[in-house]
Amino acid sequence: MKETIGNFLLRRLEEVGIRHIFGVPGDFNLEFVQQLENRGRPEWVGNCNELNASYAADGYARLNGPAALVVTNGVGALSAINGIAGSYSEHLPIVCICGSLPLRSIARRTMMHHTLADGSQDVFLRAYRQVTAAQAQLTPQNAAEEVDRLIRTAWRLKRPVYLELPSDIAYLEIQVPDDPLVLREPESDEERLASSARHIAGRLSGARRPAVLIDMDAERFGVLQEVNELAEKLQLPVATMSSSKGIFSEQSPLFAGIYFGSASSQQLRDLVEGSDCLIAIGHRRVDSTSDFFTDHLPDSVIRLDGYSADVSNEYYEGITLRAVLRRVIDSVPVRQTEPTRHRTVANSTALETSDTPLTQAEFWGALQNFVRPGDVIIAEDGTSSSGGTKLVLPEGCTFITQAIWGSIGYTLGALLGTLKAAPERRHILLIGDGSFQLTAQELSTILRHDLKPLIFLINNGGYTIERTILGLHAKYNDVANWHYADLPRVFSRREVASHVVATSKELSEVLRAVDDSFIFVELLTKPDDAPLGLIRGGHASANLDYGPRGPQSAAGAQIPVPKS
Amino acid sequence: MKETIGNFLLRRLEEVGIRHIFGVPGDFNLEFVQQLENRGRPEWVGNCNELNASYAADGYARLNGPAALVVTNGVGALSAINGIAGSYSEHLPIVCICGSLPLRSIARRTMMHHTLADGSQDVFLRAYRQVTAAQAQLTPQNAAEEVDRLIRTAWRLKRPVYLELPSDIAYLEIQVPDDPLVLREPESDEERLASSARHIAGRLSGARRPAVLIDMDAERFGVLQEVNELAEKLQLPVATMSSSKGIFSEQSPLFAGIYFGSASSQQLRDLVEGSDCLIAIGHRRVDSTSDFFTDHLPDSVIRLDGYSADVSNEYYEGITLRAVLRRVIDSVPVRQTEPTRHRTVANSTALETSDTPLTQAEFWGALQNFVRPGDVIIAEDGTSSSGGTKLVLPEGCTFITQAIWGSIGYTLGALLGTLKAAPERRHILLIGDGSFQLTAQELSTILRHDLKPLIFLINNGGYTIERTILGLHAKYNDVANWHYADLPRVFSRREVASHVVATSKELSEVLRAVDDSFIFVELLTKPDDAPLGLIRGGHASANLDYGPRGPQSAAGAQIPVPKS
Repeated sequence: MKETIGNFLLRRLEEVGIRHIFGVPGDFNLEFVQQLENRGRPEWVGNCNELNASYAADGYARLNGPAALVVTNGVGALSAINGIAGSYSEHLPIVCICGSLPLRSIARRTMMHHTLADGSQDVFLRAYRQVTAAQAQLTPQNAAEEVDRLIRTAWRLKRPVYLELPSDIAYLEIQVPDDPLVLREPESDEERLASSARHIAGRLSGARRPAVLIDMDAERFGVLQEVNELAEKLQLPVATMSSSKGIFSEQSPLFAGIYFGSASSQQLRDLVEGSDCLIAIGHRRVDSTSDFFTDHLPDSVIRLDGYSADVSNEYYEGITLRAVLRRVIDSVPVRQTEPTRHRTVANSTALETSDTPLTQAEFWGALQNFVRPGDVIIAEDGTSSSGGTKLVLPEGCTFITQAIWGSIGYTLGALLGTLKAAPERRHILLIGDGSFQLTAQELSTILRHDLKPLIFLINNGGYTIERTILGLHAKYNDVANWHYADLPRVFSRREVASHVVATSKELSEVLRAVDDSFIFVELLTKPDDAPLGLIRGGHASANLDYGPRGPQSAAGAQIPVPKS
Repeated sequence: MKETIGNFLLRRLEEVGIRHIFGVPGDFNLEFVQQLENRGRPEWVGNCNELNASYAADGYARLNGPAALVVTNGVGALSAINGIAGSYSEHLPIVCICGSLPLRSIARRTMMHHTLADGSQDVFLRAYRQVTAAQAQLTPQNAAEEVDRLIRTAWRLKRPVYLELPSDIAYLEIQVPDDPLVLREPESDEERLASSARHIAGRLSGARRPAVLIDMDAERFGVLQEVNELAEKLQLPVATMSSSKGIFSEQSPLFAGIYFGSASSQQLRDLVEGSDCLIAIGHRRVDSTSDFFTDHLPDSVIRLDGYSADVSNEYYEGITLRAVLRRVIDSVPVRQTEPTRHRTVANSTALETSDTPLTQAEFWGALQNFVRPGDVIIAEDGTSSSGGTKLVLPEGCTFITQAIWGSIGYTLGALLGTLKAAPERRHILLIGDGSFQLTAQELSTILRHDLKPLIFLINNGGYTIERTILGLHAKYNDVANWHYADLPRVFSRREVASHVVATSKELSEVLRAVDDSFIFVELLTKPDDAPLGLIRGGHASANLDYGPRGPQSAAGAQIPVPKS
């Protein structure tokens, strides 16, 4: 069939399940955004800036799978690149569409605005090459193939891709396939698949202490069902990482906890480190997810990734994670055993409230009682993620944090994306004042779309995560003390609820009155009050980052570990 | 002498005239920011986010010369890259210092947060390679040389550079030069210099209609004094570009106007296009500065750039712009002639005010009366720069706009930089609502430092510049309608003045009451009310960008050119 390049691209995005597109208009993409407005689908969600758009797309992808954003040449593309790199780091399939210079300008080598104006032509694509899995500049000759290649690559690798759509070709008609684009995993090589599954099943059958450790790729590659089946069938304990909290039910008797190096319980360390058949799915050893390399996976660990299995001395390729797991499940016998609960589950407890200044401990205790099944909890890097990671999640919750990329400000943009992806769920944002300031304006987009998150802004007078590392009393860790709770009324002309909470009693009252409307709560806590895990991590981070000649050992350099 | 790498870098920055450093702390740069805090100089100016920091550094550089910012690995570096690319495009010497992974992590190939966590190690430096003039990763072995090389390169080329400071070496002592770093232009090759100057002087002496056209490099390479001397000596008319407005006094009788292709007056077109000896300094032909390539420089144009002269059939290298101009000045005779005023200077006129809704024309008329000698006027791309470019500047004014890179939101961050560079001057920001939303939070930094700009925010209900191109009534060109004038009171706990102005009468009252305190004025104008130049440019832009198959010709697609 004949179709304009712009409409073909929009159709493809819709066919793979993208219902919303984020972005900022610019003169080199307006013609495409106009096609979107004419077509009516996917829904356009205009952001305040491109970085926020990239965060929104990332958040959207975490609940939806594929996501897309539209930016303009140079200025827009480079503003979004941090968010796209984050999606690469954390394995999310994002299609970044850059409305770029008209082909006529490229061919004629005329200098254009939104460029370096030095004759260079592909510098932005080259920058994106560093942080995306595939890139293309569309032409009428390659568009039909490249659009499909890029979307498929993003989906198969769970990585972002970058696509330049020159502004003078979006309305050109080309021949395109009639059939919808269907995303399919590649077929596995049968021999490699059978061999790897046999190898793994053999290892499992001979094991006395088998266990599973899953990182984010278990979710990204869509094998949580298989993980559950395998764990159930063999009664395997399953641990997650701090970067994958919540992807295995924390209410399951098989859930063994969050494995986080030396910060894990001894029971969990024994279980993981002492396993004679640890199946690690998508595991990456990163300072921030291994408690600064204090983890210790057994040498005999079986490593399963999206398209490979590393088992003993054999490395299997040409297979898919899903096919391997399915084959293993089918080939192992049910283990008949009394189910063991591997972890003590915290029960909600009645909390004392008081009129004394609110502490972090009080807040996280109250939040534990407040969360309910099905919540989407988005926790900013720092105090929020550290405290949030300790929550025992009710059934069906999703926990979102950027544990590896750790770009502060991410979560406010991401919240817009999660809200659009799953408006029927309750979304709770946990964010600090320092982080909030990076992306604050995107709150206005959330209000503009009449979305109803619960936002807890922890105002602790600056970058508390940094104060655990260096500069406890340093000026550079202070931020301006905004009237945060007044912001919703600046950004929206509707009546919106916001509260400033200084004590646990006030917090309790606010939480009791929560309904399903937009709610913004500013929590006042002290700059040096932080979850213990954050403080310990800060000290480890300083030692790793600055070495023995660093300034972290000076008196008063860091938030100290509390005595008690 | 022995010095720590961090202190050496700080000393070098100070030696070349950098009195303020912008940035955002992060765990990989805290140790360096701590050195800065201990040292006390340059002054640390913490920003809300890294993009804003890069804009602030750019604005600072426009008044100060060299500038620097500090970001953290990956997340910070990539957030700032749009601003750095803008500084490349618009020729500003910025040192972007990235507190990066400790060398120990690089050597051991351990995976770290703030990276792609895929084993890659130099992707951010590679991204920066696309948009900077030089890059380096410091080590104890190369730091003494690389720091000087990068700062010199930035200054000589008037381009940004990117420097990675691994977090574990800032406190290591190395041997460094005692002598301060002195920035000197390279010496010219004497024969080439003499030949080029003779060639140019010869062309001038035989010319009947010589003229000068200067773009931003005349300012960046510091030859405005030489331009003035040459123009005075030969009574040459001098035209600027839209990208260099104000660098030649608009009050001078020799000032010929802003040459902007077919949008220029016929008198100016004749003067430039009909010149038989046009000296074009730093001229670049960009769509946005040539009224979409409707300019026409004579084939015989003499092109002088930072380090070259292109004269007739000869291309001179190994020379400096300053040396060539100086030599030409010295070798041409004074032209004895009655000075001609090449341009009618608008006088301030008494304006009628009314209670009817404020128009763009009324605002720009009022502003013409309001500006005074020495003002720094920062005009955001779009309505603001289009209107601002028409102002006739009093003596000693600086006009700042991003006419080539055109990244919206730039000016608010840049304003922080200009205020820090020249706090004794009056700074006037002109910005639209759509642009303001990209970087709004940086207003809080301006307030935090008790700086006193005058901010005029034109609230015209969205992206009016885009409505001139496409989507006159399109939803994608709308933005949320904030209570802009309430923002200063959210960001600051001091008493700050803000006003909402809906009529020329109200505007007149506000302007009359202006003192030297912080003032924020929100101006309400209609979404389809725009300076004529902007509308014409929008139409030209659409035709260039989308070509004959584009959507711009549909009825109601664009703001039409007003009838009258």
